[in-house]
Amino acid sequence: MGRFCIQGLAEVYFCRVNVEIIAIGDELLLGQTVDTNSTWMGLELSQHGFAISRKVVISDDPVELTRALNESLSRVQAVLVTGGLGPTLDDRTKETLAEYFGTKLELHEPALRFIRSYFQRRNLPFLEANKLQAMLPVGEGCTILPNPRGTAQGMWFEHKGAVVVSMPGVPNEMKGLMREEVIPALTKRFERPFRFYRTILCFGKGESFLSALLGDWESDLQHAGISLAYLPAHGQVRIRLSASGENESQVRDLVNQAVEEASKLLSPFVASTEHEDPAHGVAALLLDSRQRVAVAESFTGGSIASRLTLLPGASNWFNGGVVTYTDAAKVSHAGVDPETLRQFGAVSEEVALQMAHGIRQSMGADWALATTGYAGPGEGEEVGKVYISLLGPGGLEVVHFQHWGRSREMNIHRGVTYALHLIWSALRKHQEDCQKKVV
Amino acid sequence: MGRFCIQGLAEVYFCRVNVEIIAIGDELLLGQTVDTNSTWMGLELSQHGFAISRKVVISDDPVELTRALNESLSRVQAVLVTGGLGPTLDDRTKETLAEYFGTKLELHEPALRFIRSYFQRRNLPFLEANKLQAMLPVGEGCTILPNPRGTAQGMWFEHKGAVVVSMPGVPNEMKGLMREEVIPALTKRFERPFRFYRTILCFGKGESFLSALLGDWESDLQHAGISLAYLPAHGQVRIRLSASGENESQVRDLVNQAVEEASKLLSPFVASTEHEDPAHGVAALLLDSRQRVAVAESFTGGSIASRLTLLPGASNWFNGGVVTYTDAAKVSHAGVDPETLRQFGAVSEEVALQMAHGIRQSMGADWALATTGYAGPGEGEEVGKVYISLLGPGGLEVVHFQHWGRSREMNIHRGVTYALHLIWSALRKHQEDCQKKVV
Repeated sequence: MGRFCIQGLAEVYFCRVNVEIIAIGDELLLGQTVDTNSTWMGLELSQHGFAISRKVVISDDPVELTRALNESLSRVQAVLVTGGLGPTLDDRTKETLAEYFGTKLELHEPALRFIRSYFQRRNLPFLEANKLQAMLPVGEGCTILPNPRGTAQGMWFEHKGAVVVSMPGVPNEMKGLMREEVIPALTKRFERPFRFYRTILCFGKGESFLSALLGDWESDLQHAGISLAYLPAHGQVRIRLSASGENESQVRDLVNQAVEEASKLLSPFVASTEHEDPAHGVAALLLDSRQRVAVAESFTGGSIASRLTLLPGASNWFNGGVVTYTDAAKVSHAGVDPETLRQFGAVSEEVALQMAHGIRQSMGADWALATTGYAGPGEGEEVGKVYISLLGPGGLEVVHFQHWGRSREMNIHRGVTYALHLIWSALRKHQEDCQKKVV
Repeated sequence: MGRFCIQGLAEVYFCRVNVEIIAIGDELLLGQTVDTNSTWMGLELSQHGFAISRKVVISDDPVELTRALNESLSRVQAVLVTGGLGPTLDDRTKETLAEYFGTKLELHEPALRFIRSYFQRRNLPFLEANKLQAMLPVGEGCTILPNPRGTAQGMWFEHKGAVVVSMPGVPNEMKGLMREEVIPALTKRFERPFRFYRTILCFGKGESFLSALLGDWESDLQHAGISLAYLPAHGQVRIRLSASGENESQVRDLVNQAVEEASKLLSPFVASTEHEDPAHGVAALLLDSRQRVAVAESFTGGSIASRLTLLPGASNWFNGGVVTYTDAAKVSHAGVDPETLRQFGAVSEEVALQMAHGIRQSMGADWALATTGYAGPGEGEEVGKVYISLLGPGGLEVVHFQHWGRSREMNIHRGVTYALHLIWSALRKHQEDCQKKVV
């Protein structure tokens, strides 16, 4: 999110509304919890045209919070604080904020009634600690944001022309408050330029190769007011193009044109300009073609099935899968011939193909993916050696071989990415072929 | 991590070495990438006795980085910077750091040789952009930290008594550099007090209930120099107790005693004081008892298998699993009787039990877990209704019923947590029973 000036438009940097996020929690600093909250907030705010200029993670300590608020408010007009609102003694955020904004905590009757009924509905005892959750800051410049999903309420403070919002750190409570209260209120409160970004998902080559393909075109982008970033992960690279400005259609046109140009330059390696996640792409095409998939996983251990079934509506195109971690399971559950296992070993092209054939038939699916390999970790020559196979309609058979590194987690994640791109690309080709036939 | 003073020890706050982390990347602010790097660094640094006092995420912008460095260096003596070192034009961190520390970029011959050979070994073309990766800051106070896993090198800057380290953002490259170069060098460079923390993993009750059980004991903790935090997630709560000081054995004793006292107070809800993750606990007990497990998953869609198989050595105790997303697959792959499906429906106690029986037998396992439920999302009455069953040696049969909320992702994550706690608790009981028999 550099500063950019839109061609033919006014310099927009100065009218952008920057938001800073302060995430509170020792567990985030210690690394006991991954901070997925800020990730979600980043995405959500960007999509509503707010630019996040900084995220800060601090300890639940009044001195730290005060210092972080001072710093943030010296830079921006909107600060979103998450965490530190639990009912337990280690959470001191509410008291600190009340003091910071010169308000007092008082018993908030509507909140108390709500919290009581929250516990009643769940048949849980109402504890003294829970009553403290209804002690909230009152007075001018402070608004309570109702949180129907938990017992800690959101708080909106107006202070010298700036806004500070405090929300609980529990992900679904924070998300509900953001969607229902905070984003609508921020949108009303701040005028902001329109921001638009699109992503090109590339597969098959690394970022320096892709950057070389873009060449001078990329160097000229900044003058055109477009920002470009490479986001490599697990064998795929997302290229994000973005711009912002006052005129919505001008900004859209600018980004759309850049996406078109870049896609041409990157052409054989572009997986999609619509989906950022191959799982979504696979789901959309399966649903569209009314076809179904099944999986037989060895080294990916259920991670392909898990990734697919996290998508709502997966039952419309996913039949199921097997995780075959022993030779016996490969025979009994994936239909592999014991003779093939003896002759070629469990990690072989032959076994990968038989697993796909077996699961496709037994699950009655149109498509089947199978994986076998040595995920590691370890020192052996074989670690990182994997086969991924795909079967499709019309006798389609593909086996992909790769020799990756020694990290178990990385090999598994890459395996999932490769498998999804393999079927996605075949599904696209299948759809094109079908459309040709119809024409 | 508040400030604490150890009873009978000197006030330790002033001799603690605080580290700040600056993570660079628009993808982190936009929410396109989850910042797992800082999580890992937090954990790793804490374990080596460094206290992370702040994490800051900024855009890849020279002005932002300069500002963040000024702020961090006004507070701490050690700053770790990740990201912004890629070969592409959007990465400007190296140039910014060189300018900040008054050094120049020059061609670093050993790095160039290494990068060339890196591409040769992978049969990849060596591009002009890759040569730029060997342009590195030189001069007094700047040390290059070799990165054998990629083409961006680490950099260690000494500046007015403080240290700034720059590392690539690619997770495995950053982790290698941290383990092999940065942590050993930091440990040599800074004397620091010993830090020790332990975690009590609780299951079955929420944080306010657990806090009420601790009662006055918790309020007295701070005077004893012990810090306590609640980390709730997906139906379990981790309670972290920590202290720090000069005298290692005194600090250990202090925390160990607190863990013992808290465990007594929380007793029926303590799952472990050894493992923070139920998957690790399950793995350890299965390995120990030389028993094996298999899973049949419906609403968890492979997430239990995936969680278990991410653990190294899973093949020693995991046979495999099935993901049965259709009624037909429940019959063909999990041995469910079609008549039971008709009579009770796919989401029923009866089907959950038959799935466990079926998979235990067909996979030849000692233990079997099965799940069936409506993960959602959606508005129907049935959304959130789930059954989790467990079969064990000696005819053990358990079915757990729960009615959760409407979030698909949360229902799946909770399902995994509940299933793992179910088998973990049964494995512990089984082990105790076996030990009694031996005695």
